[in-house]
Amino acid sequence: MSTNMDPGQQLSQDWWRTEIIEMRPGEIRYRGYPIEQLIGQVSFAQMIWLMLRGELPDRRQGELLDAALMSAVDHGPQAPSIAIARMAATCGVGLNNAMASALNVLGDVHGGAGEQAVELYQDIARRIDAGATQDDAVKDALRDWRERHGKFVSGFGHRFHPVDPRAPRLLELVDRAAADGVVTGRFAGIARAVEAALGEGRSKPIPMNIDGATAVIYAELGFPAPLARGLFCLSRSVGILAHAWEQTQQGGRNKGPMPKQFLWTYDGPPARDVPPDNRSD
Amino acid sequence: MSTNMDPGQQLSQDWWRTEIIEMRPGEIRYRGYPIEQLIGQVSFAQMIWLMLRGELPDRRQGELLDAALMSAVDHGPQAPSIAIARMAATCGVGLNNAMASALNVLGDVHGGAGEQAVELYQDIARRIDAGATQDDAVKDALRDWRERHGKFVSGFGHRFHPVDPRAPRLLELVDRAAADGVVTGRFAGIARAVEAALGEGRSKPIPMNIDGATAVIYAELGFPAPLARGLFCLSRSVGILAHAWEQTQQGGRNKGPMPKQFLWTYDGPPARDVPPDNRSD
Amino acid sequence: MSTNMDPGQQLSQDWWRTEIIEMRPGEIRYRGYPIEQLIGQVSFAQMIWLMLRGELPDRRQGELLDAALMSAVDHGPQAPSIAIARMAATCGVGLNNAMASALNVLGDVHGGAGEQAVELYQDIARRIDAGATQDDAVKDALRDWRERHGKFVSGFGHRFHPVDPRAPRLLELVDRAAADGVVTGRFAGIARAVEAALGEGRSKPIPMNIDGATAVIYAELGFPAPLARGLFCLSRSVGILAHAWEQTQQGGRNKGPMPKQFLWTYDGPPARDVPPDNRSD
Amino acid sequence: MSTNMDPGQQLSQDWWRTEIIEMRPGEIRYRGYPIEQLIGQVSFAQMIWLMLRGELPDRRQGELLDAALMSAVDHGPQAPSIAIARMAATCGVGLNNAMASALNVLGDVHGGAGEQAVELYQDIARRIDAGATQDDAVKDALRDWRERHGKFVSGFGHRFHPVDPRAPRLLELVDRAAADGVVTGRFAGIARAVEAALGEGRSKPIPMNIDGATAVIYAELGFPAPLARGLFCLSRSVGILAHAWEQTQQGGRNKGPMPKQFLWTYDGPPARDVPPDNRSD
Repeated sequence: MSTNMDPGQQLSQDWWRTEIIEMRPGEIRYRGYPIEQLIGQVSFAQMIWLMLRGELPDRRQGELLDAALMSAVDHGPQAPSIAIARMAATCGVGLNNAMASALNVLGDVHGGAGEQAVELYQDIARRIDAGATQDDAVKDALRDWRERHGKFVSGFGHRFHPVDPRAPRLLELVDRAAADGVVTGRFAGIARAVEAALGEGRSKPIPMNIDGATAVIYAELGFPAPLARGLFCLSRSVGILAHAWEQTQQGGRNKGPMPKQFLWTYDGPPARDVPPDNRSD
Repeated sequence: MSTNMDPGQQLSQDWWRTEIIEMRPGEIRYRGYPIEQLIGQVSFAQMIWLMLRGELPDRRQGELLDAALMSAVDHGPQAPSIAIARMAATCGVGLNNAMASALNVLGDVHGGAGEQAVELYQDIARRIDAGATQDDAVKDALRDWRERHGKFVSGFGHRFHPVDPRAPRLLELVDRAAADGVVTGRFAGIARAVEAALGEGRSKPIPMNIDGATAVIYAELGFPAPLARGLFCLSRSVGILAHAWEQTQQGGRNKGPMPKQFLWTYDGPPARDVPPDNRSD
Repeated sequence: MSTNMDPGQQLSQDWWRTEIIEMRPGEIRYRGYPIEQLIGQVSFAQMIWLMLRGELPDRRQGELLDAALMSAVDHGPQAPSIAIARMAATCGVGLNNAMASALNVLGDVHGGAGEQAVELYQDIARRIDAGATQDDAVKDALRDWRERHGKFVSGFGHRFHPVDPRAPRLLELVDRAAADGVVTGRFAGIARAVEAALGEGRSKPIPMNIDGATAVIYAELGFPAPLARGLFCLSRSVGILAHAWEQTQQGGRNKGPMPKQFLWTYDGPPARDVPPDNRSD
Repeated sequence: MSTNMDPGQQLSQDWWRTEIIEMRPGEIRYRGYPIEQLIGQVSFAQMIWLMLRGELPDRRQGELLDAALMSAVDHGPQAPSIAIARMAATCGVGLNNAMASALNVLGDVHGGAGEQAVELYQDIARRIDAGATQDDAVKDALRDWRERHGKFVSGFGHRFHPVDPRAPRLLELVDRAAADGVVTGRFAGIARAVEAALGEGRSKPIPMNIDGATAVIYAELGFPAPLARGLFCLSRSVGILAHAWEQTQQGGRNKGPMPKQFLWTYDGPPARDVPPDNRSD
């Protein structure tokens, strides 16, 4: 036996360092608050906020976050994440594993639109703070956006829904919260200005979608952009779990993406023989 | 090019079949309910219930589920899942990827205690329904449990907390809900009987822990046992996200489990040479 | 700041303990062998063996393992794992993430057949060692198998291939190795006896498939059953990577399981309104 | 029941399209070659090449790829990926799941160095092709690299090994292959020029490491840069599997990153009470 450690060496005390949770035997505090006080006083959405931000939101802020979370749980088995959850459930792995394979694909393209929309809104806000008119700020931010990301603006337009039924309803909640002073309403205004700019001169508008609308809420509530993706992951995990569970109950073994009679198109090299001298033996 | 499909064949209509979500352009319904009605009327916890169960819970049922979800979000960076989330965050992957690697390990040992406790409670309930006294049902169910799973009973006892501060507070909420007729209180009674049986004849009791207490709530609310794990996954995902995000902000590259000066103990074969004739060249 | 550690405490020296790798600055040894000697002398397959088993195989053993590994790399995009890899590649995640989501579903049903076949063969061998005739051992082991696992015997029969073209070729390699004394050929004999027993009295035989044939190799080479799954994971990772990479080059964004015009069948509750009193606000 | 599909619609024939694998009942071809010919003639490394590139390498090319793959399998339990595999193995998930959680973190920082080094070498080659001297090409490419990626150049230098023992041995194999006309040796020359440039004017050189050396091989063999990461994933999966399997045999339940007596440092808010009015009930 040989050890690679210096046995006299003491463990540096702060290899794992956190501001989130403190524990002693019989005691658990999140951000300083004892868990037994939080339970029954604080909703799941408020707890999510506390864990991510460090302070408790008030009830109305918590409800706005709650609405964003509950509105994005699922968009059907055509979404890669949901299809993956359902296929995984037929492969003999646990519910947690099926959820992980699905959650894992909520990357820039599938799960990043909310984050990108928050970034766009914040960029516009910064330009206004620096003295630009809202019109110029929107126009310039969109131009820069398209240079970096291409033609489609995350959070606006939908390949399936002419109008995404979730967006106007979420904006209504934001407006109500702004009227009551819960949020400023600034990012709702910015998002509507983006929507107007995108539709300008077109016969068909490009309305805000679920990602654009939840991004308004996350921006209004002061979440940094990357957490828009994190919150979307929490939200979509619900649909992922529901579909994995439904598929488990339906049964099926090694369920592929399409019925068995549809395989795939092969357009590689035609049939050929292995040349004789590839190996020495 | 050769295709493996019969081009005249029509796709069978129900390869993907669900009772969860229905969509038409501009319309999204979950379990029949239009999303624009659900938004603002239904909490995240109620939505989770609707997605998993098919019907909406009332407000009080939703609040009990909410309490179970918010109480299990995190138990610190010593838990493998949380450590994995933090390490992953330093490896150059997205927040969703860090979450997936962590969620993935909530298997039978790390994430299955709630499911196992619900199974135990339901087993006891079935024995009572079949005519056994509660005492006999508990004793027999525990004996069978230990034959299958070993000495430790999931949901009871804690290696760190003499009393888990989350459990009594959650049971208080269940008792209140039972007093108001929201739930029957049957499984709270069964769980307390298990706790009593486990402590019998011992100087130190083996009190209910967080998994035993959330299992009471899930059983009272009628969730099937496997969903106790699914719900735990949703809950713990919050802590996983919070720690991945905190680590991202702290920085670090390829952060290992322990400080660099502590490697590991090697106790394999001593240093030796490769024998000369392992390969033909 | 409060610390949860006892600052005077020394790290126990063997929290991470391994017989696989030993390192000092400028020195890396696997199972005692210095890496600079292994490189160029030992093939990838031999290295896999060394890492998993602790000793180097000779050249012929390494080639048999190599054949098992190279033969199971892919079975097309209808397999859930491959479809997942391709879908993931369109979601904006890294190649490693796409591979992980896919590898993750190689569970009992999708990736466990080889492990189960090794278990079956070893069970038969144990029965023969205990005095049973081969016929009785096969019959009894199959009966027990079906009680535990159901009608289908892992490693035999194929829903698509009347004869799996990989199996006879792999068995040929095993026979040649047995003739040369590289392996005993015992498990090849057992597997053929299983095949014969399964086909008895049927018009259509149930021939050995890829999992049954690689299981013969793994059993002949002395791998414990769980590593048959592990080795399959290494093998199939090649197909997973190849398809993820091909899909990356083909492009596509959020590619679902089927073309967009085919959604899914909804057979949940009919359209309905949310009851008015679900929330307190 | 309502269906979301147009029942008269035929499935478009090429939703899944591949040049990798073609199948008919009883027939499997990879890139045109029948599997029964490949088995026994083609090594695992050659098969990996065929799957990724479309054509078979000759024996010597296959051996060079083989050497790159076998040399990077493991760097010990201090690496996040290996630690994750071992922790996962104690959480009650399958070997495939433990492998997936670990593989998943081989992102830009932990698994991307080879890809980045290939990009650097190819950038230098392009500059030389465009007329620059090698000295200028190296200097300019390094300057651009550092602007994009920061001070450290992927593939050179090692925090633990003064000289990485794998690199010179791999370069030796490349030199031998170049002498025999298997590869051109161009990228070995470029990599050595990078090494020389990095060490210029320093008392301590910054020698090529494993990632820099395998990147030479991948570049010499004509692999596109992203596949350097893909190949590293295949290689490191071996170490991941070996450690997950060793940990499984060692046992352990919910094994955290450090011994239990070392928790973590908490430096969040001090203990405090939840304000009374966070919830309406």
